[in-house]
Amino acid sequence: MALSRFARSNLKQSGRAISNYMTETGILSEGVSTSRRYFSSVSNITGSSNLKYLSGIGNIYILVFGSRGIRITPKYQFPSPENILEDLDSEDYYEKLPGLEATNPGEKPRVVVLGTGWAACRFLKGLDTKIYDAVCISPRNHMVFTPLLASTCVGTLEFRSVSEPVSRIQSALATCPNSYFYLASCIGINTDKHEVHCETAGSVGLPHEPYRFKVAYDKLVIATGADPLTFNIKGVKEHAFFLREVNHAQEIRRKLLLNLMLSENPGISEEEKKRLLHCVIIGGGPTGVEFSGELSDFIIKDVCERYSHVKDDIKVTLIEANEILSSFDIGLRQYAIKHLTKSGVRLTRGVVKEVQDKKIVLSDGTDVPYGLLVWSTGVGPSGFVKSLDLPKSPGGRIGVDEWFRVPSVQDVYALGDCAGFLEQTGKQVLPALAQVAEREGKFLVELINRIGQQNGGKAFCSKDIPLGEPFVYKHLGSMASVGRYKALVDLRQSKDANGISLAGFLSWMMWRSAYLTRVVSWRNRFYVAVNWATTLVFGRDNSRIGP
Amino acid sequence: MALSRFARSNLKQSGRAISNYMTETGILSEGVSTSRRYFSSVSNITGSSNLKYLSGIGNIYILVFGSRGIRITPKYQFPSPENILEDLDSEDYYEKLPGLEATNPGEKPRVVVLGTGWAACRFLKGLDTKIYDAVCISPRNHMVFTPLLASTCVGTLEFRSVSEPVSRIQSALATCPNSYFYLASCIGINTDKHEVHCETAGSVGLPHEPYRFKVAYDKLVIATGADPLTFNIKGVKEHAFFLREVNHAQEIRRKLLLNLMLSENPGISEEEKKRLLHCVIIGGGPTGVEFSGELSDFIIKDVCERYSHVKDDIKVTLIEANEILSSFDIGLRQYAIKHLTKSGVRLTRGVVKEVQDKKIVLSDGTDVPYGLLVWSTGVGPSGFVKSLDLPKSPGGRIGVDEWFRVPSVQDVYALGDCAGFLEQTGKQVLPALAQVAEREGKFLVELINRIGQQNGGKAFCSKDIPLGEPFVYKHLGSMASVGRYKALVDLRQSKDANGISLAGFLSWMMWRSAYLTRVVSWRNRFYVAVNWATTLVFGRDNSRIGP
Repeated sequence: MALSRFARSNLKQSGRAISNYMTETGILSEGVSTSRRYFSSVSNITGSSNLKYLSGIGNIYILVFGSRGIRITPKYQFPSPENILEDLDSEDYYEKLPGLEATNPGEKPRVVVLGTGWAACRFLKGLDTKIYDAVCISPRNHMVFTPLLASTCVGTLEFRSVSEPVSRIQSALATCPNSYFYLASCIGINTDKHEVHCETAGSVGLPHEPYRFKVAYDKLVIATGADPLTFNIKGVKEHAFFLREVNHAQEIRRKLLLNLMLSENPGISEEEKKRLLHCVIIGGGPTGVEFSGELSDFIIKDVCERYSHVKDDIKVTLIEANEILSSFDIGLRQYAIKHLTKSGVRLTRGVVKEVQDKKIVLSDGTDVPYGLLVWSTGVGPSGFVKSLDLPKSPGGRIGVDEWFRVPSVQDVYALGDCAGFLEQTGKQVLPALAQVAEREGKFLVELINRIGQQNGGKAFCSKDIPLGEPFVYKHLGSMASVGRYKALVDLRQSKDANGISLAGFLSWMMWRSAYLTRVVSWRNRFYVAVNWATTLVFGRDNSRIGP
Repeated sequence: MALSRFARSNLKQSGRAISNYMTETGILSEGVSTSRRYFSSVSNITGSSNLKYLSGIGNIYILVFGSRGIRITPKYQFPSPENILEDLDSEDYYEKLPGLEATNPGEKPRVVVLGTGWAACRFLKGLDTKIYDAVCISPRNHMVFTPLLASTCVGTLEFRSVSEPVSRIQSALATCPNSYFYLASCIGINTDKHEVHCETAGSVGLPHEPYRFKVAYDKLVIATGADPLTFNIKGVKEHAFFLREVNHAQEIRRKLLLNLMLSENPGISEEEKKRLLHCVIIGGGPTGVEFSGELSDFIIKDVCERYSHVKDDIKVTLIEANEILSSFDIGLRQYAIKHLTKSGVRLTRGVVKEVQDKKIVLSDGTDVPYGLLVWSTGVGPSGFVKSLDLPKSPGGRIGVDEWFRVPSVQDVYALGDCAGFLEQTGKQVLPALAQVAEREGKFLVELINRIGQQNGGKAFCSKDIPLGEPFVYKHLGSMASVGRYKALVDLRQSKDANGISLAGFLSWMMWRSAYLTRVVSWRNRFYVAVNWATTLVFGRDNSRIGP
């Protein structure tokens, strides 16, 4: 076969050679190709047209990229392309994989959910487990309460206070005999056979590695989220920290505390000290602004008290190509700029050209030396989403209709940051926000429960069931804290609408109360409140745990 | 020079070659050689006797091993021997290092403390910073409340609740102009020049790596602790987890949760499942027993509720060569055996011959497959201590008199697990316990403060000051929890003395209260109490954070 022959002859020699090849053909580059392009590249090289295996297994899409959640910054883990190609050697590779077979007529229908973000967890929370068995597949076993993640980097909140185990959100995953949570990444979907192919997370010492399995579904919900945008800028992935997972926050914290301590070492020059203590944030969206605010709080209160030798050298710079908080009301934007500047955050307009080991090069040629670099310039489609040969929305997300169904295939739904309305729906792709994802999850689970109640839960069974009203998104407003007990609250329904917008201490109280009530479990609600109280009383903890 | 020539000709070719060589000569092996043997090996090989550099700098002892705190299990970080050898190239290498010079007559004397364990922190806490400037050097910036560390592995306590930043213990380190905390390992001591040589922790992007500096001292307190004993058993360092640092506990937790989730994957055989879920603890001391107790609590309460698919396959085995809790009263020992067995912990007598990837081989030939292996067979002298050419106590610790002075050199003191009474004092080496280390720290800091008050703080100035009464250790008793709200309390003053010993729920209350009052800060006392309460109400959190 074309593919296996190629794997044998060209790819087995060296992992490096493969990844070079992959990058050249666009497979491992930022603009990852879809599986079609991938396969055609391969067959072109081998000069063979024998693609029987590929056509024989129907619509199977292979993931080349690791999906959200298993990556660590600044180094990444990708499933090795070598292994994926080699495994396709045998025609019945996927036939022979262990897994959950299709449900029998007497059994409950099985809903497979990919992901553990806002959309997936809201969906799982609402799923009627009397009707359905649930299987959740994700490389992370908890949901992250993302709006409070920035606070954990400096120790205002504990890491565990913002993570919610998925088995607490939907207890059936842990207790029902036919419901499961699998710590794995989805690497491909066979929509004809109604099954997903998975690989366990990490390298783990199972009987064979990578350990793969398949899970048949009656309904499939894809909610795998998006990846941070790097705009193909050189050096970002190697040197910058993202802020999307709890372990990203842990790494940022470790780096920040390390730099604070290293800069005290004898013999460090003034220039080097200033570089080590220069924290640069790229991207002036809510995440970038909130993190800047938290950092300035940390500096004003904790660094001054507990790192008094270096307190005058630590600086924060926020670099944004356009305007900070562009979706907010202009009055709030001006408030934020004034407040951040007063708190010591330097706001700079600039476009990053390249990121090096110890400095950023801007497009106007300026060098910006840094000790800590946090990258938060928004998100775009993940490699997994790009690899799927499903209809796409403008912007490259999985295209869905107003009921989150993926057209052209049956029983497949997509939600959250990985899904967008198709052009023909006439609706705009919704922004990548927690409240959007959560509302979508709620809408879809009600629909799926209704379908289940009308005996449409099994595969290929929901065709004639009325769908009801389509999804309509109503924006409830935006909030962002800017540090020192101040926040912005923008209650306008869209960027150009009129409405209430507030800034200051009252907004900050609203921000805290709103998020406290949104935290999923009582345990974490309690811990967030306790963390806030102890930070106020005792200051932030600054133990640097780990090697 | 002999040394540099050797470095150039033989060692520069390959890192692997060096470490092979080091292992052969015993330098990187378990029984690390002292610096003397190290140097003589080198000179033998080169066949040169020109050791002018070595003799020229007086009593300088080079550390080949990484010291406690920077290591991670199961992979370790050692300062590269190649670098150490290369750096010795120039005669005035240490002359040119940046650092803190000796204090001037008008300045406060400087006490340098190596380590942030129980002894070091108790010493720092009591130091009179009106008399002295303090410099603390350690690869970790916090003290670990070790008696409660086992509880963090299963989520009964949070990691941050048992770690105490050293700058909270002695605030002068953060605030006084001439007091510092350096995140670094000590790599050598020049007792003639009264200075220590240090290397910053980790590989960090400073102007040159490894980044070294020196600190001159008026008084030096060595409290760098001990290393876990592995008895040179093959595979222990590669495959077992130790339980001495907070990041060890984090790794154990991640592995435990990973195994629980992996064993649910489809297609895992029954045998493989049982292996993944077999937790083996080697060593029946208090740490091993407490960890077994915590594990069985976790299994009985949390695994049964939240991993119901695999709850019957998880097993705990404690392997001990002799008797568990050998220092405890025989009645308590029998109670512990009965209680642990009832909680599902299998107690086995055995001696480990080799540790492999997925199984332990005992000396009687039995194979014990495992998924998680925790090694707690006590501690022995660290590579750093072995490398120092100071007098040694029986057992290889730094030898001290009854005032913790190291004889033959001036102004050097040693405390805690790294120090032991010299044979000529006629006193036994004290056990490696937190209460011993803490009491020693308290004794020495009072002595040093007294010396300072009598103007003996500066180097070479304390000769004629009376030392007062020698240190006498009075054992207050031992405690160990065994799980399920039960603990042992042994109030006898020694192994053979008579006295009160209790076991059961009341002891468990005593255990918790005693430790709660011993926790250093109010912040952590509050968090430990809150953690215990939420564990009781909500169960343990099981989010698995990290890649």
